[in-house]
This record gives sequence, C-alpha cells and structure tokens, in this order.
Amino acid sequence: MTWKITSTKLDQAGLLVDESLFSLGNGYLGVRGNFEEGYQANYKSIRGTYINAFHDITDITYGEKLFAFPETQQKLLNLIDAQSVDIFIDGEQFSLFEGEVIAFERHLNFDKGTAERLICWKSPSGKELRLTFRRLVSFKTKELFAIEITIDPISDIEEVKLVSTVNGDVSNFVDKNDPRVASGHAKRLSVVDVKHLDRMSLIVNKTYVSELKVACASTSQIDVEHSYSSSASQTGITEVYTCKGDQQIHFIKANFYTDTLRHGSMLADYAISLCKENRSKTFHDYLYDQQMYLDNFWKKADITIKGDDDLQEGLRFNLFHLLQSAGKDGVSNIAAKGLSGEGYEGHYFWDTEIYMFPVFLFTNPEIAKLLLTYRYSILEGAKARAKEMGHKKGALFPWRTISGTECSAFFPAGTAQYHISADVAYSFIQYYLATEDIDYLFEFGAEVVFETARLWLDTGHFYDGHFRIDNVTGPDEYTCIVNNNYYTNVMAKHNLRWSSKIVSILKQENSSRLLELTNRLGISETEINEWSEAAEKMYLPYDEGLGINPQDDSFLQKAIWDFENTPKEHHPLLLHYHPLTLYRYQVCKQADTVLAHFLLEDEQTYATMKNSFDYYEKITTHDSSLSYCVHSIMASKLGYHEKAYNYFIETARLDLDNTHGNTKDGLHLANMGGTWLAIVFGFAGLRLKEEGISLSPSLPNNWEELAFNLQFKGRLFRVEITKHSAQCHLLEGEPLIKPIRIKI
Amino acid sequence: MTWKITSTKLDQAGLLVDESLFSLGNGYLGVRGNFEEGYQANYKSIRGTYINAFHDITDITYGEKLFAFPETQQKLLNLIDAQSVDIFIDGEQFSLFEGEVIAFERHLNFDKGTAERLICWKSPSGKELRLTFRRLVSFKTKELFAIEITIDPISDIEEVKLVSTVNGDVSNFVDKNDPRVASGHAKRLSVVDVKHLDRMSLIVNKTYVSELKVACASTSQIDVEHSYSSSASQTGITEVYTCKGDQQIHFIKANFYTDTLRHGSMLADYAISLCKENRSKTFHDYLYDQQMYLDNFWKKADITIKGDDDLQEGLRFNLFHLLQSAGKDGVSNIAAKGLSGEGYEGHYFWDTEIYMFPVFLFTNPEIAKLLLTYRYSILEGAKARAKEMGHKKGALFPWRTISGTECSAFFPAGTAQYHISADVAYSFIQYYLATEDIDYLFEFGAEVVFETARLWLDTGHFYDGHFRIDNVTGPDEYTCIVNNNYYTNVMAKHNLRWSSKIVSILKQENSSRLLELTNRLGISETEINEWSEAAEKMYLPYDEGLGINPQDDSFLQKAIWDFENTPKEHHPLLLHYHPLTLYRYQVCKQADTVLAHFLLEDEQTYATMKNSFDYYEKITTHDSSLSYCVHSIMASKLGYHEKAYNYFIETARLDLDNTHGNTKDGLHLANMGGTWLAIVFGFAGLRLKEEGISLSPSLPNNWEELAFNLQFKGRLFRVEITKHSAQCHLLEGEPLIKPIRIKI
Repeated sequence: MTWKITSTKLDQAGLLVDESLFSLGNGYLGVRGNFEEGYQANYKSIRGTYINAFHDITDITYGEKLFAFPETQQKLLNLIDAQSVDIFIDGEQFSLFEGEVIAFERHLNFDKGTAERLICWKSPSGKELRLTFRRLVSFKTKELFAIEITIDPISDIEEVKLVSTVNGDVSNFVDKNDPRVASGHAKRLSVVDVKHLDRMSLIVNKTYVSELKVACASTSQIDVEHSYSSSASQTGITEVYTCKGDQQIHFIKANFYTDTLRHGSMLADYAISLCKENRSKTFHDYLYDQQMYLDNFWKKADITIKGDDDLQEGLRFNLFHLLQSAGKDGVSNIAAKGLSGEGYEGHYFWDTEIYMFPVFLFTNPEIAKLLLTYRYSILEGAKARAKEMGHKKGALFPWRTISGTECSAFFPAGTAQYHISADVAYSFIQYYLATEDIDYLFEFGAEVVFETARLWLDTGHFYDGHFRIDNVTGPDEYTCIVNNNYYTNVMAKHNLRWSSKIVSILKQENSSRLLELTNRLGISETEINEWSEAAEKMYLPYDEGLGINPQDDSFLQKAIWDFENTPKEHHPLLLHYHPLTLYRYQVCKQADTVLAHFLLEDEQTYATMKNSFDYYEKITTHDSSLSYCVHSIMASKLGYHEKAYNYFIETARLDLDNTHGNTKDGLHLANMGGTWLAIVFGFAGLRLKEEGISLSPSLPNNWEELAFNLQFKGRLFRVEITKHSAQCHLLEGEPLIKPIRIKI
Repeated sequence: MTWKITSTKLDQAGLLVDESLFSLGNGYLGVRGNFEEGYQANYKSIRGTYINAFHDITDITYGEKLFAFPETQQKLLNLIDAQSVDIFIDGEQFSLFEGEVIAFERHLNFDKGTAERLICWKSPSGKELRLTFRRLVSFKTKELFAIEITIDPISDIEEVKLVSTVNGDVSNFVDKNDPRVASGHAKRLSVVDVKHLDRMSLIVNKTYVSELKVACASTSQIDVEHSYSSSASQTGITEVYTCKGDQQIHFIKANFYTDTLRHGSMLADYAISLCKENRSKTFHDYLYDQQMYLDNFWKKADITIKGDDDLQEGLRFNLFHLLQSAGKDGVSNIAAKGLSGEGYEGHYFWDTEIYMFPVFLFTNPEIAKLLLTYRYSILEGAKARAKEMGHKKGALFPWRTISGTECSAFFPAGTAQYHISADVAYSFIQYYLATEDIDYLFEFGAEVVFETARLWLDTGHFYDGHFRIDNVTGPDEYTCIVNNNYYTNVMAKHNLRWSSKIVSILKQENSSRLLELTNRLGISETEINEWSEAAEKMYLPYDEGLGINPQDDSFLQKAIWDFENTPKEHHPLLLHYHPLTLYRYQVCKQADTVLAHFLLEDEQTYATMKNSFDYYEKITTHDSSLSYCVHSIMASKLGYHEKAYNYFIETARLDLDNTHGNTKDGLHLANMGGTWLAIVFGFAGLRLKEEGISLSPSLPNNWEELAFNLQFKGRLFRVEITKHSAQCHLLEGEPLIKPIRIKI
C-alpha cells in the first residue's frame, strides 16, 4: 500500500483530471491516462501522447508588437495516437458508459511503473466479462509505450473482436479563455507516411514549420487463435482481431516512438527495427525491466513517513511523476506540466532549477547533470537574446522555451524575470557543491556562470556607492517591472560572487585550462574584478522600521490589498483582476523575498528573515503552485512548526486533490518537486553550502519517523529522523572527510 | 502665396507622403490625395476614403491574454472609393507615368478649401492637352466629396473618353512591421447594395461585426455632347462618357457619403436625396460655399508671422488640417492622424485634449465644445472600464478608442496612462474658464470632473501623510508603470481640487440643480471633502539635490541612457530597443514633467521649472511628435529664446518635411496643434487661469510681427506683437470686466 493511487471516477470532470494523474512517461515519451476504448459521446477528453521537446514553431500575434517581442514560440505537440483499441463482445461495443459497470478501478503503480484498469462489465444485452488494461512507458527502452489487454469471459460469449488503431490525424487541445492553456494553433502535424507490412504499422508525421518528424511503429499480438484483417487510410491504420469468446485472451500492443531530435533522419527505420527487435518479448518482459529500473530509483529516492499514509501516497506520487517527466538526454528538460498535459505548451521555466533540480541532485545526480546540460545547450541562444535585449555582453535565459528562444508573449511576467539567469547559475553552482565535478565545471558550469554574471554587470549600474538593478520582475508576478527586487539582487550577487570564485577554483585546479577558457570567452582580469565589486556592493533593500527586506524599492510604499473585501470566488486573483490592479497593491502571488531567504539564508539575520516571513505571509495569496512549499520550508526554519506542516499539506496533494482546479491540463511538476523540498530542506533542514551538507530536523507532530536516502559526493546516505533523534548513515562509498552535520 | 502648398513629386515615396499632405476632409468625411487616374503599375498607394468614427470591431489576439485585456478594438475603415476616373485620349490612357509630362503641379489651397492638379501632358503617340483636376470635401454639406476635371486640347484630339467608377470592394492598408500601423484585418466591409438608376450610382457597404453601414451616392455631369453607357458589377458601378476631343470639357463627379452613425437606417435614401438636391449645382457653387466657410474660419483662426514665409505656410497648413480633421458632431473626435490616413487605426487619444482642443477653444469654441461632448458621450464606458479595472468608483477613459471602449493592446503604454482621465477633466475646466458656460458645466463638465476625481481617489492612497498614486504610466512611454509620476500626480491634484471647486461654483449658481446632480451621482459631502484632502496632500516628487521634480519616484536612481554610443540609425529608439531596455534608463520619448510644468505652472517655482527643463532636455529624444512643441513653449517661458525657436521649427513643418518618415500613414495632428500652442502659449505666452487670460510675449529674432485672433468669453480679440510692443484689441463683443493682461 501507498505505492499506488486508485480511482473509480467516471464523470466528466473526474476523468479529465485522472487523464493527468494516471499519465505515464519516462522523460522522453508521455501518454495521458486516456481510455483505450474511448468515452461517452460528448465527453471532453484531452487524448495526448507527447515527446519531450518535440515541438512546432507557431507565430505569436500581438495587438501592438514592439521591438524584440518574440515573433514565434515553440509548442509541444500531441502526437500520433496509438492508445486506441475498441473491443466488441458479440457485436456490442465495450464502453464504461454503456451496459452495467459491475466493478471498476484504476491504479497508477509507483513501484511497478504501470497503470492499470480492472473492470467487470455486463453488456447491454447481458454478456458479462472481466477486462484488465495494463500499460507502461518504458524506462529501459525509452521509445516504447506498451498496452496489454486481458479479457476473461464470465457469461457465455461467442466472439470477441479487437479493433486496434494507430492514428496520425491529431491536434492539440485549445482553450480560448485560460491564459495558462494555448488558445490556438491546434493542428500542427501532417501525416507524411503510412505503411502497413508484416503486421507492423508505421506512421510518420511532420510538423508544419519546425520540420521535425515523429514516427510511430506499432505491432500487436494476441495469444489465441484468431482471424485478422487490416486497413490503412491516408492518416491511420486499423487492425482487426477476431477470436472466440469462451477463453481468456491476452492482447498486447507495443508502440515505438522515434523523432528527429533523438533519432535523426532515420527515425522511421529505427522505429521499425525496435518493433522487430522487441517482437519476441512478452508484456511480462517489459514489466520486469520496468520493475528493475524502479527498484533502483526508489532505493535512492524513496522517502518514508511513518504515521501519515495519505501523505506517503502523495509523496511517492509526486516523486514518481517527477521521474516520469524529467528529460534525460541533454536536449530536453522538465516541462511545467511534465509530459502529462499541454498546459503552458510544454515549456521549460525556472521551475526546473529552483523546484525540481534539487530533487534529482540529491537522489539521481546523473539526471540533474543532464538537466543542466540542456541549459548549456541553449546558452548561445541566451547570449543572442541578451544582445537583442540591448546588452553588450552576457546571457539572458528565456523565461519559457523549448528549443532555446524566448517564448513568452507577455514580457512583464516573462522576459522581465531576469532572475532565471541567476537561478540557472545557482543550479550549476549547487551541482558543483554536491558532486565536486570539476570537469563539468570546466566544460559547462563555469561558462554559464560567467555569461550570466556578465548579464548582471550590464543590467545593473553603480549609483550612490551601490550596485543596483532596475526594471526587472522577481518571482512574484503580481508585482512586475520594479527596481532592486530583493530576490533578483541577492541571486545576482551570488551569481557574480561565484563567477570570480570559480575563477579561483579553476585556477588552482588547472590554470592553463582556465586560461584557455577565459581566452575563448574574452574574459579579462578587469572584468573579473568588476564581478567581485558588483557582488560586494550589491544593493539589498532593507527597511529599518519593519526590520525586513522590502520586495523591491517601492513595494512597501504601496497600499495593502484589501483581502477582507475580496470575495472567495475572486481567487486566484490573476483570473479576476487586471495586472495593473494587482501591481498597485502589496499582494504577492507567491514567495519572493521569502524564497530568497531560503536559497541564500546567510545573507540576512534570522530576525530579518523571521520579520520578513511574518510580513509577507499576510499578503501572499499562493495563487502560484510554487509558493506553499517555500513557505513551508521557511516556516520550518523559523520554528513555525504547525504552519510548516499546514503549508506542506497544501503542496503534497495539490494535484491528487486538484486544489488548483486545472490538473486536467497537466500536473504541477514544480509543486511536486516542492513537496520534496519541503521535507528535505524543510522538515529535515538540509542545506548545501561550500562547507558541505548540514541537517537541522524538526518533524511535524503527527509523524513518527521520516527517512530518506541522499546522494552526495558520490556516496549514498540514509537519513533517519524521529521526534527525538536524527541519524545519517553512509550506505555506499567512502566516508566523507567532513561528515554531514546534524543540528538538533 | 502662403495660402497653399505645392508639389510636383511623382516618385513612389513622394507620392505616398503627398497622399497625406494633400488629403481633404471636413471632420466627417476625409479623402486622401490620390490620383483619380491611378499610378504606375507596382506603385504602392494608400487609396483612402474615411468617415470619422466609422469603424468595424476586430479581435485583439494575445500570446498571453490576462484579465481585462481588451478582447476587441475598433478600426477606422477605408470606405467605398469614388475617386477613380480614367481618361482616354484617342484610345490612349492618360497617366502621369506614360508619355511626356510637360508640366505638373498640385496644390492644396487653405483659403479655398480645395486641392488641384494642373497638368500639361503629351501622350505616347504625341497628343497634347491640359488637364485640371479640382476636388473638395465640403464644409457646408458634410456628406459631399466633389471632383471637377477640365480637359483642354492643345494638339488635335478626336475623342475623349472618361471612365468613372464607384467601387465598393475596398480594404484597409496593412504593414506587419510597424507598431504604428495596423498589421491585420484589412478587409472589413462587404457590399450589400449596388444600384444604378437615372445616372446615379449607389453603393451600400456594411461592416463585418459592428454592423454599421455606409452609403455612397454618386452622380456625374459633363458639359458637352457625349455618348453614355454604364455597367454594374456585384461591387461597383462604371460609367463611360465619350465625347469629341476638339473642345474644352468639364466633368463633375459629386459623391455623397452617409452612414449609420449620423443618418440612421435611412442612410441610402438620404444619400440619394442629397444627390438629387445637389444635381443642379455647379462646381462653382460648391467652391463658393467652401470659400464662405473658410473665410469665416480664417477670420477667427489665422495667425500671421511677418518675416518667415516658410513658417507661415507650415502654420496655415497645420491649422487647415486641424479644421479638416475635427469631428463636429459630438459622436466623433480628432483621430491621431485626422482623416488623412490609417495610422493608429483612426483612434482618439489624449492628443485631442492636450494638443488640439486648445486651438479650437480659442479660435472656434463651438468645435471645442463638440469635442468635449464626444468625451461625455463615452463617460458611461469609462465608468464601466474603471469597474473592470478593479475600481469601486470613477471613470477611467480609454487610452485609445473610437466608440468608447479601450482599444489599447499593450497596457504599459496604454491603459496604464491613467493621466488621460485628468487630461480630459483639464479640458472641461479650461472650457469653463474660457467660456464661463455654466450650463455646459452643469450638464456635462461637472459630471466628468467628478467621476475622474473619483478615479483618483480610488487609485491613490494616503501614506506617510501624502496622497500617492502608484503604478501608472505618464506621458513618457519610455518609462512605464511607475509610482508617483509627477505629471500624473499634479494633473490628478488639479482634477481633485477642481472637483470640489466646481461644487462651490455650482452651489453658488443654483444649489438645487447641484443637489439634483450630486444626488443622481451619489456624491456625499464626505466624498467632496476627500477630494479636497487628496488634492491638498497630493505627493509631488521633488529632488532637493537637483532642485527638480523627478519624473517619478525612481527615475533619478536609474542609469542615464548612453546617448553618445547610440548610433543615429537607432532612432527612434522604440523601433530598435525592447521596452524593458528603454525603461531601465533615464531616457524620455517626450516631454513629461516639462509638460506638467507648462499645463500647471503655478505648482512649482520658476527655478524648479528651469532646473527641470535643463535636466530633462538632455535626456529627451523627442521620438514622439508630441514633444517638441512643449519644449518650445517652456523654452519661451524660461527665456531660452533660441531654443524655443529651434524646437518650434521642428514642429511647424514636421509633416511638410516628413521629418518622422511616416507621414504617408497620415498627418501628425497633435503636432499640428502643437505648432499653434508653441506660438500662442509659447511666443505670445498666453495662459488661461481662473483670473483670466494673460499674455507674456517674446518673439523669435527673425520675426517682425506676430498677429492672431482669439475668442474668449464670447468676444473676439486681435493680438498683435512686435519686437517692441504687444497689443490686444477687442474686435467683437463687450469689453471684459478684467481686461487681458499683457506682461512684457
């Protein structure tokens, strides 16, 4: 138990949410939890299959287009549909919305990496049978999406017919009225090849503009005597299996997806060869491989909480989906909704670096590294964007992107969020601290930190003895385009400080290799000194009267939002108030200064952080799903244990309980990472700094024990925390020179 | 001389500009200066006929649409084309781009209200003739656009054929790459009726969405024996006149445009009846009526400058186009480009109130009043917009509009310019001061001033003893969304102060009528006191060190734009830098604080205004055409006489010399008003305050004399200024109790 979630929903709203909750993926390929046999007529369903980073390019239109507004954006595409299998029982089509559903439940199994539906059904004419649908998206063979259908007759059945299709005529989902969902460009793929030979179906689609191709090769097997026929249209292939109904039937459909980004121009051949290779495999073979992978994953990543089963379920659910969503190839990342839906059009945000990267850094540093490598892969684009934005030097990472160009069409809460560049740098630095991978620092990390430092030097300016950064937006999107946003300034300071620190580290390690790098990048001694000076003189706003860090220069002079007279149904505020209205008040969508205090706690005194937390807590709506976890972490740190737990509860089951109401569009991946953060950085009090890792635990009252594993500097540790004790065991590897400190 | 402009241009660029310069209009109907016979193949032409406020509704699309972003906008439409007449000389088609142009010049006559082209032309086969095209858009019969073509043979010509068309298949001009021109929605009209009877053509078009209709009834006459034929298509009517070529020929085409907004559902009948009524009139009749109107106009409005003919030309050119552009019916206003082109889609901005309204206020107060009445007509919309923008009360006028709803698709330089509401109030107050029209104040003015005052009270808040206004954009669009923009705050102060002052004025005049009004609007004594208090405590930023008013709270802390290293071809900056880049620096698109000092000079000391002028002058690019005139006025006031003249020169001939490079899209009407302002408020130093009018002249060195007429409190005055004297004569009406003061 607590290794799965279960649902029995069959209503419209519930099914849409379950499509996201029961989605499967492996970081490359993702499939929503749709029913193979379809839904009731008129039911809305977002039937989706996605490949991470597989996108088309669409135009952005503006009522008024100004200079350097992005003209195009990327859009994750819904791909060839291989989910569909219609089942006919003596001519009656199986549907959970016809006849009598005697039993139905579905599971998502975190330990096995599968989704399944267990059904007992009586047809309108009274034929009774059991149906079991199982599916997986393989972690071993990333191209594979497999379905197994088992049919067990209960009453007399003469004939069972399975109609399996692969359909290339697909579109994306659109919703005109929700800024978080795309409103146009539904159809972006055309079918360029349909082939059927030797019981193998092949469909190749091509995007309209990006000219990427995706291929799906599909093959099915049935383990009983049957008759077979197939037909192909211009956009799809249908196979029909007919067999006797008085026996148990196993039907397996194995679909292999390849694309231009990973498989080059030979993608179709590759898909077919995968199909052929795997033909001899049974569904149990796939299950076995999947189990092996997940056993290994959970060994490193599992967190156990004694005393709270609901939470335990939510936690594993979140970790499982994080694993399913993370790109593991250096050309993809983690979309805001993972591969579970089309919300935010499959774009990557700062969510990765601040909310999800740490999970992998401490449980699976190899994946963490690949996430960084993706960022490095778009560094040239970030440099070009900085130029376009009027900077002489530096790299400005896009607020949202797939292939590296800025995809944000609303710059005040997009491009203006310059902090993403510091967030990226922060992650490269954290990676170095957690792994001591000096080679990666030489090869990738240093360049990213240097180029982002350059951005800050060119963005800010010295005034009145301070280095100030004007005209940016911090994490809080209810206050845009401000001067000296505390979060941005302190993160930029860290970025600048580390850029010169990295120079020292690399010089000590291999001065000639460093020289090669600085020569290539044209970095002078003067520039390095400027980084130090800007870091040292960075202006960090502080209000004497309140003893807090103001969110920005003018934040505290604004009126406070009238929370009392804001009707409940006006939340989230962004769906009920114009941005200007929101900007005019002290009201936060999400943790901003409080987040800065978590990420860089040594920049301020405990008292300042506590005062700030108290101040901002009152005016934060948590309308962003990135907010609760940060408040939970800081509440833990500041001794607000009950608050820490209450905020945590909001994060752990956000999607499971659909508390934001839009889980149908995909899961909130950053929040899922945030759950882990709230436990490990919050309740366990982990911090990673230059001097190593430290823990400072404080368990919620109703927890008996918290235990989790941790990778650090090539070792595996186990942390066990109870109300009265905290221990950290070395499970694998050599002891550390400086052991992990535990403060109780 | 100096009553006309002349051009002989036939090149592509010159012709496009001349289409705007030689446009004709009467505030209701406007026609661009296109050639009746068309252009060379492949020449681009913006062939346009417009009715003020006649628009369709188009969707605004956003990459990311947030709450209360306008979903639709209005768009001035290019209407049924009645300009076209093709001429065939013995079978050869007349064109200025074929054969030999022996002589060609065109004129726009400010005194006669006509445009004409005088041509001597030899056809490719050697036939020589004179052609004279004259046209007018009537001030007497606002629906009338008339053309007269005179043909005089020089060599032997056997046959002349005139092919006259009225074409309903019309579209708007689009340019994807210029934010100042529409980029889509070219085709918005369909033809719903085409009729030809009794040598009268009628076409009725209907818009796609707004369901407005426009009708054009056209009739032609020729004064020689001829044969005639006509044909109608689904979208147009063609009439052919053939006559002997050995005689002088006069051809007259009279076109009457009616629309739903002014003529209701009977618009077609009305157009036809106008056609019939006017059939007996000759072109000379039209010319006579036009001359009468213009004689009267110039009597009130002319400004004469002795010693500078070029300027004199520019001045009259500007005044003439202002007259041609101003809506005179209370349902229309003055579009940013008047009726001379499609730039800014025919929208009305604050340009009217601040740059054009004063011209009419002092030369033609009846037109000024109708401009205000238009604003009153959209007051309900402004109140609804305020609600939508989260305000409990008040009126927020749209930044750009035709029919009253916000049409700005980029809110930081659109809706955020809250100052437009104070600008509107300012004009109503100025109107009252100039006319003492207490009835108009009761009926319209008070309500507008009250409702805008309510907006300010709800937008700002008391903090630290001051009333502060956060999160607005001032006139300078290179610095958006700031706190305590000096311009906005001081204008809001004026608005608030006057709202309580108006209460006192009206109470004294007729207290029961006032009570009726305040009851209707739900205004309490408390609210009136709050207005006074907010006005009194209004925060007006002042910098001790520099002795200037900072443009906003944070303006002076920003880095100064690197003007020295900005290449010339990077101007105007908005076409070469992202708004965020511009916002980050001290750089002004246009006068902002300097404009506030002009409009409300008693709020600051002379020294502060002088220091401010010196400071802002250095960082102002004048990339907006609304800027030079303000700098000229303030330079005059501050004794910078040479600067005053130099800035003035930039305004007076902006369109004539196409200095902004986009005159092809229409004339810069606000700048045209600005020219008048620079003379009357600048060189003559006129100010209108509660105590009356004062003059404080300072002529440019090369001017011998400046003279102009002035309407004030129902009287007509003549002001004559020389280097050494200044006089103000009463021409019509009773002497004022307090005479106009002249400070020398």
